[in-house]
Amino acid sequence: MAQFSDITSRLEEQAIELPSWAFGNSGTRFKVFGTPGTPRTPEEKIADAAQVHKYTALSPSVALHIPWDKVEDYSALRSFANGHGVELGTVNSNTFQDDDYKFGSLTHMDPTIRRKAIDHHLECIDIMDQTGSRDLKIWLADGSNYPGQADLRGRQDRLAESLRTIYERLGDEQRMVLEYKFFEPAFYHMDVPDWGTSYAQVAALGERALVCLDTGHHAPGTNIEFIVMQLLRLGKLGSFDFNSRFYADDDLIVGAADPFQLFRILFEVIRGGGYGTDSGVAFMLDQCHNVEDKIPGQMRSVLNVQEMTARALLVDTGALTVAQDAGDVLGANGILMDAFYTDVRTDLAAWRESRGLPADPMAAYAASGYQQKIAEDRVGGVQAGWGA
Amino acid sequence: MAQFSDITSRLEEQAIELPSWAFGNSGTRFKVFGTPGTPRTPEEKIADAAQVHKYTALSPSVALHIPWDKVEDYSALRSFANGHGVELGTVNSNTFQDDDYKFGSLTHMDPTIRRKAIDHHLECIDIMDQTGSRDLKIWLADGSNYPGQADLRGRQDRLAESLRTIYERLGDEQRMVLEYKFFEPAFYHMDVPDWGTSYAQVAALGERALVCLDTGHHAPGTNIEFIVMQLLRLGKLGSFDFNSRFYADDDLIVGAADPFQLFRILFEVIRGGGYGTDSGVAFMLDQCHNVEDKIPGQMRSVLNVQEMTARALLVDTGALTVAQDAGDVLGANGILMDAFYTDVRTDLAAWRESRGLPADPMAAYAASGYQQKIAEDRVGGVQAGWGA
Amino acid sequence: MAQFSDITSRLEEQAIELPSWAFGNSGTRFKVFGTPGTPRTPEEKIADAAQVHKYTALSPSVALHIPWDKVEDYSALRSFANGHGVELGTVNSNTFQDDDYKFGSLTHMDPTIRRKAIDHHLECIDIMDQTGSRDLKIWLADGSNYPGQADLRGRQDRLAESLRTIYERLGDEQRMVLEYKFFEPAFYHMDVPDWGTSYAQVAALGERALVCLDTGHHAPGTNIEFIVMQLLRLGKLGSFDFNSRFYADDDLIVGAADPFQLFRILFEVIRGGGYGTDSGVAFMLDQCHNVEDKIPGQMRSVLNVQEMTARALLVDTGALTVAQDAGDVLGANGILMDAFYTDVRTDLAAWRESRGLPADPMAAYAASGYQQKIAEDRVGGVQAGWGA
Amino acid sequence: MAQFSDITSRLEEQAIELPSWAFGNSGTRFKVFGTPGTPRTPEEKIADAAQVHKYTALSPSVALHIPWDKVEDYSALRSFANGHGVELGTVNSNTFQDDDYKFGSLTHMDPTIRRKAIDHHLECIDIMDQTGSRDLKIWLADGSNYPGQADLRGRQDRLAESLRTIYERLGDEQRMVLEYKFFEPAFYHMDVPDWGTSYAQVAALGERALVCLDTGHHAPGTNIEFIVMQLLRLGKLGSFDFNSRFYADDDLIVGAADPFQLFRILFEVIRGGGYGTDSGVAFMLDQCHNVEDKIPGQMRSVLNVQEMTARALLVDTGALTVAQDAGDVLGANGILMDAFYTDVRTDLAAWRESRGLPADPMAAYAASGYQQKIAEDRVGGVQAGWGA
Repeated sequence: MAQFSDITSRLEEQAIELPSWAFGNSGTRFKVFGTPGTPRTPEEKIADAAQVHKYTALSPSVALHIPWDKVEDYSALRSFANGHGVELGTVNSNTFQDDDYKFGSLTHMDPTIRRKAIDHHLECIDIMDQTGSRDLKIWLADGSNYPGQADLRGRQDRLAESLRTIYERLGDEQRMVLEYKFFEPAFYHMDVPDWGTSYAQVAALGERALVCLDTGHHAPGTNIEFIVMQLLRLGKLGSFDFNSRFYADDDLIVGAADPFQLFRILFEVIRGGGYGTDSGVAFMLDQCHNVEDKIPGQMRSVLNVQEMTARALLVDTGALTVAQDAGDVLGANGILMDAFYTDVRTDLAAWRESRGLPADPMAAYAASGYQQKIAEDRVGGVQAGWGA
Repeated sequence: MAQFSDITSRLEEQAIELPSWAFGNSGTRFKVFGTPGTPRTPEEKIADAAQVHKYTALSPSVALHIPWDKVEDYSALRSFANGHGVELGTVNSNTFQDDDYKFGSLTHMDPTIRRKAIDHHLECIDIMDQTGSRDLKIWLADGSNYPGQADLRGRQDRLAESLRTIYERLGDEQRMVLEYKFFEPAFYHMDVPDWGTSYAQVAALGERALVCLDTGHHAPGTNIEFIVMQLLRLGKLGSFDFNSRFYADDDLIVGAADPFQLFRILFEVIRGGGYGTDSGVAFMLDQCHNVEDKIPGQMRSVLNVQEMTARALLVDTGALTVAQDAGDVLGANGILMDAFYTDVRTDLAAWRESRGLPADPMAAYAASGYQQKIAEDRVGGVQAGWGA
Repeated sequence: MAQFSDITSRLEEQAIELPSWAFGNSGTRFKVFGTPGTPRTPEEKIADAAQVHKYTALSPSVALHIPWDKVEDYSALRSFANGHGVELGTVNSNTFQDDDYKFGSLTHMDPTIRRKAIDHHLECIDIMDQTGSRDLKIWLADGSNYPGQADLRGRQDRLAESLRTIYERLGDEQRMVLEYKFFEPAFYHMDVPDWGTSYAQVAALGERALVCLDTGHHAPGTNIEFIVMQLLRLGKLGSFDFNSRFYADDDLIVGAADPFQLFRILFEVIRGGGYGTDSGVAFMLDQCHNVEDKIPGQMRSVLNVQEMTARALLVDTGALTVAQDAGDVLGANGILMDAFYTDVRTDLAAWRESRGLPADPMAAYAASGYQQKIAEDRVGGVQAGWGA
Repeated sequence: MAQFSDITSRLEEQAIELPSWAFGNSGTRFKVFGTPGTPRTPEEKIADAAQVHKYTALSPSVALHIPWDKVEDYSALRSFANGHGVELGTVNSNTFQDDDYKFGSLTHMDPTIRRKAIDHHLECIDIMDQTGSRDLKIWLADGSNYPGQADLRGRQDRLAESLRTIYERLGDEQRMVLEYKFFEPAFYHMDVPDWGTSYAQVAALGERALVCLDTGHHAPGTNIEFIVMQLLRLGKLGSFDFNSRFYADDDLIVGAADPFQLFRILFEVIRGGGYGTDSGVAFMLDQCHNVEDKIPGQMRSVLNVQEMTARALLVDTGALTVAQDAGDVLGANGILMDAFYTDVRTDLAAWRESRGLPADPMAAYAASGYQQKIAEDRVGGVQAGWGA
């Protein structure tokens, strides 16, 4: 097995984008709990995100969600972010909270509404031009609840046409990533339910259209690392939305439900060339902190990804190949597990300190008083959430 | 196979309680769509529910949800309902929308909050005394999102104690039904996740504590009719919450996702003595009409239950037993399928007319102008939904 | 809704290929039950399959499985089949019952074993040349049971190379169909686990490489008709393996577990141009009759497909489009359900009789004495099964 | 967090029973691969099992399966086992491999076959008297494949009666454990599909009837540790069948698919008093080594259980309770994860050596030459498997 010192240069390459909305309130259809200190503005969300980066050096950018993060002046927002030590990242569109989209957006049977949805994406690209963002991320809530309600095929064809229009507007350095999701909010069919559909749609567009893989958007039992491998092999893995789940799209802290699965995913990412500054694969979180504190929740998340990345980097790939080729099932499995079971936390803490970071970022944040300060300061206004 | 004329007296026994909240707005965590005509008050919900009964004669009662249906004077509400031709039915408690219940209600680690949740249930029983309701239905959102967050065992013991206190307050003619749910809103553990837990809890209380089976609250692949059979066998099936699902707790129109499953469930209900006026098993709907019209949605639902009940009543049980005992797999299956595939709609329409009901309740309702009227009349105010 | 008389010409186009192995014994890992009359030779399997066609006129061809159906003289086998009124159809390869394939076949790390597996497929094509078969069906059991056991990516690349070699051997009128399967017999990863992988692999080969969709090979909750739609849209749906399931790959009689799902699948097949003599989509069964009689089991299966096809053909597609475009959820769903709930059995029986077929094929077969005859005649020898 | 030295006395209490059949061949319905050295007799299986105990001191007993392990003289078999340093443990009945049981055993509609199945269990108790076994384990394959095939309720009642007869034959020191399973080999319904059914059945019998929990026998997404908690709370957890799964009842090495789940299960076992010599809860493996070596596979399994038990014992339960009571979600989760992420392998190796065991049992076994020896010696005869 590799030594920890062998992998620190690779670990330095790690960057995990934070979603601005993770700092706002979220919940289930039953209840959204509010908490003291929740941001009221895009700026406050960015300020909170910057705290995560400050203590971990793992999250140098923040993803925006339009219209939740709409501002008058995106250059000013960018400067604000930079002033807090972070960049603005992926721009996420939203076509699921307008009454017009009750029966779809880019797939809608009515060309007027379809055009409205397309225009929203073009506006997002306008914003990307100002924020310097590379990626436009499209997650579609489009689908239907009852058999017969919608014409599956017509919707797929309209989706292709809509995406084409948006794709053509992208700048040369910009990309589109199309997310897929097994179910929710639609319960009979989703228009982009699986990686195959996302792949078929983006493959028809061109090189700068890619797939976004959200780790919570699969059927029970799906081997996610296999999809990671396949998309990397096909050259079409654009980005990750990390989170974890026990049942559906639970949006829990990444690594919380099944740390071994996260390890396996990261192993395949590395195996397939999807890790590191040159890879073109964006790591992002997409989570909901319904009952836990949001800033430490994000911190825990990026640390989980880092810890599992370190374990995955430690795998003795040479020995693994030998065992695999020999049909040594227990040997090969043992080599993988050896890395997974290695407790890298002490080494990571020391390495963090060597870089001027706190050994224990969560403790350092807790001791900083930031949480108390925002709880006291952020009085009045409307707390950010999915509806604002 | 039986003739339709043989089963009409059994069909007359059918009663399916409607949930008041089905007439308010509902949706997913992503969006709740409003619609013209949505009720603003408990009275308007009851008036809408009465429409379903008027055209189908299938839904003589309406379930209330406290606090959503809180009024000053429940006797007046009862009179209002009676004036519209329906009764008030089951009272549903709610311990999932108060900030105090973030970490549980009847299971909460803090005795103060536990007491508050118990008191809420006692208040519900007070209301039952006024509405003449027989059943108190308890669905608990209690659970946790992360391993370690909660002490599973301690919560179960506290649940037992809380239920005991509530049970002891019930009148001699009143019952408690405890609903179970696989997941949501909690994602790591639910305190009452399966029929076994609900059964073990109510069995410890006494005869008037029973299980409520919601058809959408099971793991993928679960054989629900088996649970129906088992609970009837154990004498502990109190009531049904009918709806249907493709994935999670989708709360779609009952029978919409898998009509054959609904047929099988109803067959086991009848087989086990759970059908009819003497059975003690309450039939209720618990659905969300997120994208379809609410009153016709409820109408479609009770008609679906009726149609599948008719098919289930048609099964030639004598021939079935002979085939089963002979190990004639295809024969026995064929006898069941024969009833399922029989199109009872024409017979039902004729029978409906013979009872002074419209042959096609949905068309009759559509032609009545009621929907247009409420859309015009119900202007202003706050549309009812899960938060109101 | 259409009238039955409108759809009979379409129904005449229906052809459902039977698998020779369905007439042999099958079971679970726990037990394979034998039954009197089970075929001992490929000829006896074909004779049994011909019985299904004789009474239903629905199954004019029989799929072979190599090596289970290996014979000295395939021309003679073809003549034998023709003499019994059926053709030889798809040839299925088998790379899962030789000790050499313990760790894979077309994906194996050892080039010698890979070559052996390729050669087996080339032999299958040789057989196809003699049987006049159009399709080579490849289902791979390749996969691994433990994380780390295998190099997912290397196997995928080797699969591509192996398939290329096989594809190049195909005649101009021959096709390759690549089946996917979610899990079993491998439990950690399958090398072709989903439609996306099969699609990506065959798309890389050429026009005559297509996807085979087995209705039992998906994750729980998967919307199969969506995949049907998508593959038809992409021009890559080659064939169906019909069966049904409650849990895993149960291989039950098609339509037995969820007849409404079968209806929806057939509706999308028709919607997407996948139905009928010109479509290029092959309908096949792939089932196991573990506890029920085999010949009547196959008969029940093709009749189920026919009945659901009839219902799907009855859908009033014009009205459906109007309702869909109007956002009339209940109306559109109602139009679909209307066709599903229509009992076509009487019409089908009459139509069958008008074509010189028995009204009730299963009763006619039972009365024919064939089952008793084979039970008496087929004494000695080794009953066919998956191992022979 | 506790220190490793604090938990060694608890670790000494660990005993994990090995199944004799794990040393024979197993596979899927598609193929059973044979391997050199596979035992041909019960004695050879016991000898192999003794190897696992020799190197780990974790598996002092071997479960038998009747009739697979039938011998003339059970006293002699017991002496043989003792001579190899192990005891004979649980006796498993088998009612799934006789043609008579095609439609059930203890639930069969025919009283003759039911009696035969009961008698088989009485014979198993006779054997237990001779082997000194405490537990009779009943796993029923009984169920049906098609709706209508069987009368669910009648079967349940017959099951109760059959179990009563068997229970009454048990000696005062003997127990019955009833295993449940979600599906397979039956695909529509299993007669004991869930813990609730097993619990209801054994609760009706008496104190010495308990539930057996097989970790692979649940629906996707089931929270197994919750069931562990509940059964311990109800005083009805009799034993574990440990293994792991990605999809169905894969019977993989315990801890291989989801080590964190195994950790959580063991944490609840300890929390609920189910761990240790006084607990009355039996730990057993029930696995299939289809592609990996059997003896090292079993060794890996008991070591996995030991490693996760050590981690679970390390949890700082005092701090955990404080965090839970304070609603500190991230804190409480962190305390649990802290123990899970602790690499106990070095400490375990040192402790092993201090007890005269090899630091690395798997390496020691591999170096011992035993595998080569049995491969050479065990020539001829019939390798043991599920059919022998």
